[in-house]
Amino acid sequence: MKEIGLGLLGFGTVGAGVVRGLQANGELMASRLGVKLVLRRIADLDLESDRGVTVDPGVLTTDAKAVIDDPAVDVVIELVGGTGVAKEFVLRALEQGKPVVTANKALLADFGAEIFDLAREKKTDIYFGASVGGGIPIIRALREGLSANRIESIHGILNGTCNYILTEMERAGVPFDECLADAQAKGYAEAEPSLDIDGFDTAHKAVILASLAYGGTVPMDAVFVEGIRGLSDLDIGYARDLGYRVKLLAVIRANEGAVEIRVHPSLVPLDSMLASVSGVFNAVLVNGDMTGDTLYYGRGAGADPTASTVLGDVVDVVRSLESGSAHRIAAIPESGDEIRIRPMPEITTRYYLRLCLKDEPGVLSTITSVLGKHQISLASALQKDEPEENHVPVVFMTHAAAEAEMDAALKEIAALDCVGAEPVRLRIEG
Amino acid sequence: MKEIGLGLLGFGTVGAGVVRGLQANGELMASRLGVKLVLRRIADLDLESDRGVTVDPGVLTTDAKAVIDDPAVDVVIELVGGTGVAKEFVLRALEQGKPVVTANKALLADFGAEIFDLAREKKTDIYFGASVGGGIPIIRALREGLSANRIESIHGILNGTCNYILTEMERAGVPFDECLADAQAKGYAEAEPSLDIDGFDTAHKAVILASLAYGGTVPMDAVFVEGIRGLSDLDIGYARDLGYRVKLLAVIRANEGAVEIRVHPSLVPLDSMLASVSGVFNAVLVNGDMTGDTLYYGRGAGADPTASTVLGDVVDVVRSLESGSAHRIAAIPESGDEIRIRPMPEITTRYYLRLCLKDEPGVLSTITSVLGKHQISLASALQKDEPEENHVPVVFMTHAAAEAEMDAALKEIAALDCVGAEPVRLRIEG
Repeated sequence: MKEIGLGLLGFGTVGAGVVRGLQANGELMASRLGVKLVLRRIADLDLESDRGVTVDPGVLTTDAKAVIDDPAVDVVIELVGGTGVAKEFVLRALEQGKPVVTANKALLADFGAEIFDLAREKKTDIYFGASVGGGIPIIRALREGLSANRIESIHGILNGTCNYILTEMERAGVPFDECLADAQAKGYAEAEPSLDIDGFDTAHKAVILASLAYGGTVPMDAVFVEGIRGLSDLDIGYARDLGYRVKLLAVIRANEGAVEIRVHPSLVPLDSMLASVSGVFNAVLVNGDMTGDTLYYGRGAGADPTASTVLGDVVDVVRSLESGSAHRIAAIPESGDEIRIRPMPEITTRYYLRLCLKDEPGVLSTITSVLGKHQISLASALQKDEPEENHVPVVFMTHAAAEAEMDAALKEIAALDCVGAEPVRLRIEG
Repeated sequence: MKEIGLGLLGFGTVGAGVVRGLQANGELMASRLGVKLVLRRIADLDLESDRGVTVDPGVLTTDAKAVIDDPAVDVVIELVGGTGVAKEFVLRALEQGKPVVTANKALLADFGAEIFDLAREKKTDIYFGASVGGGIPIIRALREGLSANRIESIHGILNGTCNYILTEMERAGVPFDECLADAQAKGYAEAEPSLDIDGFDTAHKAVILASLAYGGTVPMDAVFVEGIRGLSDLDIGYARDLGYRVKLLAVIRANEGAVEIRVHPSLVPLDSMLASVSGVFNAVLVNGDMTGDTLYYGRGAGADPTASTVLGDVVDVVRSLESGSAHRIAAIPESGDEIRIRPMPEITTRYYLRLCLKDEPGVLSTITSVLGKHQISLASALQKDEPEENHVPVVFMTHAAAEAEMDAALKEIAALDCVGAEPVRLRIEG
């Protein structure tokens, strides 16, 4: 059977998963492909650590460039991560016309245009299925399965760390800090967790999904990002009483010639599919104009699920090599233009507000009059619990309103004498 | 821009959806493909009915063979349905080396081997994404996204009619007949509903999924099929009290060198993703050895969702035509063998039993002793409601037991003096 040579850059957790996958299912993949995949070289700076898999020591090297340049390496798998040497390695491989499979969301979010352009120029493939959703084949669904659809919106739970913390905050009714510490103890969160919990990891993935859905590129700084760090378990509990669950969502929505791309905690209805996604699982809900809602669910991280998608991409790349159809599908649709992003103040959504109000006559009327002045109408208002130090939490649910108006209204409200702590504002989806 | 000619056979509901999709999104698809899709001919016996879409009358014909043979038709879309002329048409197109896109599950379930063999021989493509799951790109996920995985199991809610009826039976607490009539009135069920409600439509789809997951073919009569016709709203309510929801599932599971393929009402835990799938929606939960659980959810039927998948397949076929890589992926993995199917008596599962028992001392002990004799151990037993005419319903939940033993035990139990109405047996998943 013909052999195709693979070169692996980065022998960390996912890299070890790729090796394990090839060892366990290489024969099965060969029977599906008609070609044998042979891992010829692995580059990593650390050649000593035990990864729990056995490889021929002759395969290992610290020299990534030698792996890329090796004529016996037909496909390069980039699992180094980050935007430093990884970028250099990916460009070097593409420059030689070698297809690249990567899971590197930060690299694509920051340098996607340059990388995709080079792949196009060299008529070779860059596959990045594992950059969003780990083991969920969502990139493939967007790029191929839904290719007859105009994508109306995408709602993604794209960060397992955040989803685990939010699930535990609701389940156990405990504060954020405690849940974060628990997630760190279990290995679901990094010691330095800000990339996850402040929403930037989700934003990287949102940029990739938006590029796929609408063509063109999206600068990271065009994405509104709010993480889960400031979230109170009080609001998670109140939301639940109102029939909602709080999720960190990437929201991507096209309307009137512009695209919203925003990442923030959102209330989703308890009976929705997104609300059912618990723990470290991820899910992406895509609304296409023909197919309506479709949802893709699975493990968004972890060695084996991520390696599953990396190897699925390798299979695809090898099919194209074997059938002489490299660059059969553009990495992203080639609109060539930047996507027109709707600035955050121009979006319209429903809101959950929690205000800490003096327990006095006339206070509610003062608040509703400020909201009314900004064309914000209420769906409900609910006083929670007993007053404490003469203040009481009141939860408001609004109808759809403009973000700019809400910003202005909340500024006015925060300055009122009858308002205690800083107002809490969450957005509602679905 | 280069044009690719499409020939459409069957101008029914889905056919009209395909025409509508090409009219609405043809330009978008052309920008994604770099090729313009032109619908050159449509064949249907009925040229008169209004389908709500406008087509050039010169495109319409009653002669399907003329459409297939037309040199201007590069890709044939078969939406005639059934296993009669549709088979003839599909084989005729493949015989000429023309790729075929079809949504015809019955045809593939009954004659897949013959059709796939011809496509292989002629080195052309047969795509059938819309045959399972309507607008959900599940076939693509199994065939491509998960290609590095050994598939451990598949659980599918594959029939929207059944899922709508079961959702309504639970929501409104009304009997099957009433929900079926409601589904018929709303257009979710056929006047002659047996293909759906007796489970055969689900079984057709299960056969296709099993072929994709394990290679080779599966004879329809090897599939155990039990529909939802006999289901009582009583059991749906009792299951809910126990933390379960009843779904008509296709269960496909590989173990010890054989594959179980069965279709029957199943209890799934209320907090599972499958339990969240309500109304006419479908979902497929796939467990792969690397990726773990992934789930795919969306509309399983309807003109536009089905047309979305048909056109997604057309895009793929055209990409292969354009890159000269026809038959780049085998329609199903080419094991060449029939899959070894585990006979139903040999499967092992947990059970929900509802027995109608005389309200007398010693009765429970008689029942548990029969079950024990057959190595069936109980997880719980719960007497429901008040006795009626000296009989009372008792619900048993068992640990995993062999189906053959359960068959034997239920036969013995049904013959006991202390047992009133016929015992009810449902299987538990997850």
